[in-house]
Parts: sequence; structure tokens; C-alpha cells
Amino acid sequence: MKKMMLLSPGPTAVPDRVLKAMSEATIHHRTSVFEEVFAQAREGLKKVFQVSSDVLILASSGTGAMEASVSNFFRKTDTCVYINGGKFGERWGEILRAYGVNAIEISVEWGRAAVVEEVASIVEKEKPAGLFFQASETSTGVRHPTQEITKAVKEVSPDTLIVVDGITGVGVFDIRPEEWGLDVLVSGSQKAFMLPPGLSFLWASEKAWERANDSDLPCYYFDLKKEKKQQAKNQTAYTPAIGLVLGLKESVSMILEEGLENVFNRHAKLARAARECMKALSLELFSEVPAEGLTAVKSPADIDGQKVVKHMRETYGVVIAGGQSHLKGKIFRVAHMGYVFESDLLAGLAALEHTLHDLGYPVEFGKGVGAAEKSLAEG
Amino acid sequence: MKKMMLLSPGPTAVPDRVLKAMSEATIHHRTSVFEEVFAQAREGLKKVFQVSSDVLILASSGTGAMEASVSNFFRKTDTCVYINGGKFGERWGEILRAYGVNAIEISVEWGRAAVVEEVASIVEKEKPAGLFFQASETSTGVRHPTQEITKAVKEVSPDTLIVVDGITGVGVFDIRPEEWGLDVLVSGSQKAFMLPPGLSFLWASEKAWERANDSDLPCYYFDLKKEKKQQAKNQTAYTPAIGLVLGLKESVSMILEEGLENVFNRHAKLARAARECMKALSLELFSEVPAEGLTAVKSPADIDGQKVVKHMRETYGVVIAGGQSHLKGKIFRVAHMGYVFESDLLAGLAALEHTLHDLGYPVEFGKGVGAAEKSLAEG
Repeated sequence: MKKMMLLSPGPTAVPDRVLKAMSEATIHHRTSVFEEVFAQAREGLKKVFQVSSDVLILASSGTGAMEASVSNFFRKTDTCVYINGGKFGERWGEILRAYGVNAIEISVEWGRAAVVEEVASIVEKEKPAGLFFQASETSTGVRHPTQEITKAVKEVSPDTLIVVDGITGVGVFDIRPEEWGLDVLVSGSQKAFMLPPGLSFLWASEKAWERANDSDLPCYYFDLKKEKKQQAKNQTAYTPAIGLVLGLKESVSMILEEGLENVFNRHAKLARAARECMKALSLELFSEVPAEGLTAVKSPADIDGQKVVKHMRETYGVVIAGGQSHLKGKIFRVAHMGYVFESDLLAGLAALEHTLHDLGYPVEFGKGVGAAEKSLAEG
Repeated sequence: MKKMMLLSPGPTAVPDRVLKAMSEATIHHRTSVFEEVFAQAREGLKKVFQVSSDVLILASSGTGAMEASVSNFFRKTDTCVYINGGKFGERWGEILRAYGVNAIEISVEWGRAAVVEEVASIVEKEKPAGLFFQASETSTGVRHPTQEITKAVKEVSPDTLIVVDGITGVGVFDIRPEEWGLDVLVSGSQKAFMLPPGLSFLWASEKAWERANDSDLPCYYFDLKKEKKQQAKNQTAYTPAIGLVLGLKESVSMILEEGLENVFNRHAKLARAARECMKALSLELFSEVPAEGLTAVKSPADIDGQKVVKHMRETYGVVIAGGQSHLKGKIFRVAHMGYVFESDLLAGLAALEHTLHDLGYPVEFGKGVGAAEKSLAEG
């Protein structure tokens, strides 16, 4: 017998209430019963996204929504700029190039946050059709300054569409698409939305929808104009992932019952506690500006980060994540977003102390956990 | 309190065993536990597809796999031919054109099956890069002669890739991709695979994979070469729909425990019984060559087919489907694929008798059900 706990930056833990909703016998999607569920899910999504217009629901993982952000709003001849500060920033460049769009990279050292002035100056020079970046770069645990970048870019190049990957941002911390002037914001089901992977979400501004009329890039499954038309009628262009939609209705309800601000505060509080724990254990944070959804930590010298992840999972049943690409073995990442509460985090941090101890790192048991507890007690 | 039964051509009923597997707490996909589940699901899929090489698993509905069949194996300058004998045949044309491929339509009256000689003669003339059609056209309940078309096309144009939509074919009736010489075969989770929608499957021949190296159409989320490489290691290029994969492992096990041939025979037997019922009720079948997965029936004169569907669902709790596009109101479709057994079908047909009676059609209660029972008893 083994009990597992997910503290990974996706998938995150799925609440029983959501699991139960998903395990209802499948309902047919071309019925008023489904339409009612879909309508409630959409209504809830709009509130979690903090927008007044529709958020589309797609049957794909987050990358599908990222691709749709490119293929629906841009043209072959466009030049776009993207911020590469990690694996998911890199992905924007890969998608843009897959569609033959001229993609200019702003390279940010992985672990650092984008510098607003640098981004603004490149955008001012290139006047790109779009600027692509991550609100939270999941691979490094860094939070880019979304609001500040958006403000600066709007001033120097008002026609540039601001496309933001909010996969570990939306529902984790405060992002205000309409107030700040974002144009596209995407997210995925298996992070703050507390669902298994398989759904992605996309919101677009009026300006982006206008631009969609001129797009000449091919799309079919991710044809957002078709989806928008159907979803306004609580239907989808193609068969929806019905089970996950049943779960979504439940999970957005749970988020809104707790209250969005309370959810953000909980994430921020857990993030602070995790960081205090790492400091108390003399571990160095990897992220210059840590995101609220996860804490990326440099693995101690002589200890392979992958071993930390594996040992912690296999011996203590706590699932965290390692580094990706060139960060493999160098860092590990502890997530605290979605269905995660104080006791979960403290249990996870205790498992981390045990794990590091087992791997030969000098640990005074309770020192990290104690620092986290203290931080939580201080609120 | 209301009990609902799905006799719709997707989604189909999900067995409790599959629902339970899916409701296990989410496991992380970058672990050996997931890799083992994925390996078992892949192994089972190969057997259900009756192929010796890998079947890819994608997090999308079936249309995603249809799109991937176009965007991965063809070129902008290609000419392709597709058979339009229903809504899904039409979809092949829409996808090909979305990618700018020259798409020549073979129009087949909806309700009829493609004529082998006609297809062969057009293919001989056009020598297309690909021929696209449905093994079973779900919108009309027609089974196209997949084996015969493939044989004839191979003779007149050996370089043409044969791309088959097996969404309501694979696992429903016998399709032998390697033996017959198909090049691409796609399917979806919510039909014979007895899962909720959200997964699609794609198998390709060696020849198709070679052609993929020359493809110049854009793809990213559906980049099959990348998927193939990852899935050989029991991983996926992007986050998989973990819950559905857990269910898939279970559902392919169930299919193989029953035995593929037994499953095919069960479908064929149910299909015969459904047809006998319709005849006994003096209803006309819509499909010239009916598929084993569903029975499409012309709605009696003066009775709107949509009303049949709605009344049957709302009054008797049995979900069937109506007609699509110009067939709306003209036909209704009763499915008998996946987790459907004799008692389910008979209950559904009894509900149909009640429904037609309620709507003013002269019904001798038990006549249709009796004919179905007789057919089932005769095996």
C-alpha cells in the first residue's frame, strides 16, 4: 500500500468532488443537459479568467491552445517577438516557426525574469504583429512582469497583439486581461483548475478577434472562429471532452466558492512558506522572481536533482518535478497551486527534508518545515 | 429520478470498470507508473487496430487525428481525392482545403456506399497523393467497401496513400490495415473504445511515415513524428490526457478479454437485429449498405426525426441521434457499438416503439422488438 501526493507543477491534485463529477455516466453532448453544464462551466471560467467575454474550451492540452493563438490571429508574412526564458518560452518560437512566421527571440537567462525596458525597446524597433510570453514560466518557476510588459509595449507599439501563456498563471495569481490590455490568454486544465490534463482554455480581446479575420494560417481542429460561434450556443465545433467538462463545471465552482482573491492569497502564502523552508535549509532558489504556483530550487552541489525527485516519489510518495532541457539534474520544482493546502505543503516539505538527508545533504530535521510553519503562522 | 441509456453513435456507454479506472487520483505522466499504463494501453491498441506497428494516442477528439492525417503526410502542392458520402466525408475536403491542398471530391449520394470502380477510375486519372474516405460514415450509417477500394486503388495508383477514418469502424467490424494495404487509419475514444471523448488514435504505414519526411504543411501539437519518437518511450510530446489513458488501458483489456472476433460478431448480430426490428415496424433503412456500428432509419412521413430523438430521450431516457446537415429531421440513428448488449438494444427498440406510437405512427407493440429477438435467437 502506498499513498501518493502530487506537488508537481501539472498535473496537480484532483479534488474528490471533481473526480466524482467526472465519473458520472457519460452524457450526450448534443442535449440540453450538456448545454446547461457547459454554460455553467463557461460562466465560471470567465470569472476565473477575470474577463467579460467568452473563454473558449478546447479538447487538447495547453500546447494546443498555444498553437491556436498563433494559427488564428497571425499571418504568414508577420514578424513576431517572443520571450524565451525557459522551455515554454522556447515553445512559442517553435510554434511560430512551424507556421513560417518570422520569429524574433528575446533571450532571457533561464531563471531570470524578462526586463521590461529591453522588451519594450525591441518591440519599438520591430513593431511586431505579436509579442508572446509566459505569465509564469513553468520550467523555471519565474514570474514575468505581465502587467508592466503589456503597459510598456502598448505605449511603443499599440498594434502589437499581446499573447500570454497563463497555463500556470490563470487562477494562480492575479492576471487582469481586460484591465491590463492583453489580447490572448491561454490556460490548461491540470494546474490551478485542479483537473486531469486534456482541456485547454483561450480568451481573446476584440482586437485579436478582428485580426483573426485576416489570418491566412491553416487551422481546422483549432479553428477558433468556428468554436466561438458554437460555444456561444453552448455547443462545440467538434465532440467536446465531456467528462472533463463535467469536472470543469465543478472545479470552477470550487474556486469561486473559495473566492478568487482567497485562492490567490492561499497560493502566495504557500509560495512564501516554501521559499522560507528552502532558505532555512540553505538551499538556493533558482528563480530570480519566483512565481506563486511553484518554487524552483537549485539542487545542492553533488546531488543530482533528478535523484531528489525520484527518491522523494519512490520513498516518500510525494511527486515533485525536476528540471527540463539543460536544467535537468540542476533544479527541482515543488508546486503549490490548485488543490493544495498548508498541511499538504508541510507534509511535502518534510518529505523533502527526509529525501535530502537520505541523499547525504546535511539536514537539521524540522528546520525547513519549521520556517515554513512560521511563515504560514505570520500569514 | 431518471435512468438514461446511451444508444448514440458517440459518445457510447462507458463501463463501470473504465469509469473506476479513470477516477483514480491523477498520476504524474513523467513516472514509470504512467509509462507502464501507457505501454499496456499501446499494446492493447495495436491488437484492436490489428497492426504490428505503433498506434499513436493523441489528446484530442477524432477530428484532431483526421487533421493530423492531412498535415503530416502531404504537401501544399499535392492533389488529393476524397469521398464525400456524408458529413464526415465532407470534413476530409474541408481539412484538405484548410491546408491549401487541391482536393477533388467524389460525391456519393448520402445514404449510398462508394462504388469501387468509380473511385478507381478517378484515382487512375488523377494519380492523387492521397485518397481519403470513411470505413463507416457515421452521419449516414453507411459502410464503404474499404478493402475493395484499397485493392482497386493500389492497382491503378500504387503511390496514392489510402487514408481511412475508422472512427466508427475500428473495434466495430473487421478492418485489417496491413493485410489490406491501408496507409493511415484513425479512430476516437468515444465509440467502440467505450471511453468519454478526448482521445484520438492514429496508425500509419511505413510508406506514410516515409512520406512524412517530405511534408511541408505546418503542424505542432499534432506533429506525429515527434509523437512517434516519444511514444516509443511510453511518453508523449505534450501532456497526455492521463485520466483517459488510464481508462483506455482498461477498455482495450475488456475488448481483448471478450476477443476481437467476438466483439465484431456481437456488433454484427445487434446490427442485424436492429434492422429486422425496423423492417417489422415498416420503417425504411436509410443506408444502402448499413454499417455494424449504427442503424440509420428514415423517419416516417409526417414525423420529424428530431422529434423522435427528443421524445425518446426525454420520455424514455434512451439517447439516440438525429440526422446531420440536410438529413436533419429526415432520419434517426440508433447505435449498437461498444458497451451494448442484447438487453440494451431490446430496451432501446422498445422505447422506439413507444416513441413512434406516442408521435402518432401506427405501432403494434412488440412487433419490432419481437423481430429483433427472433434475429438474436437465430444468432
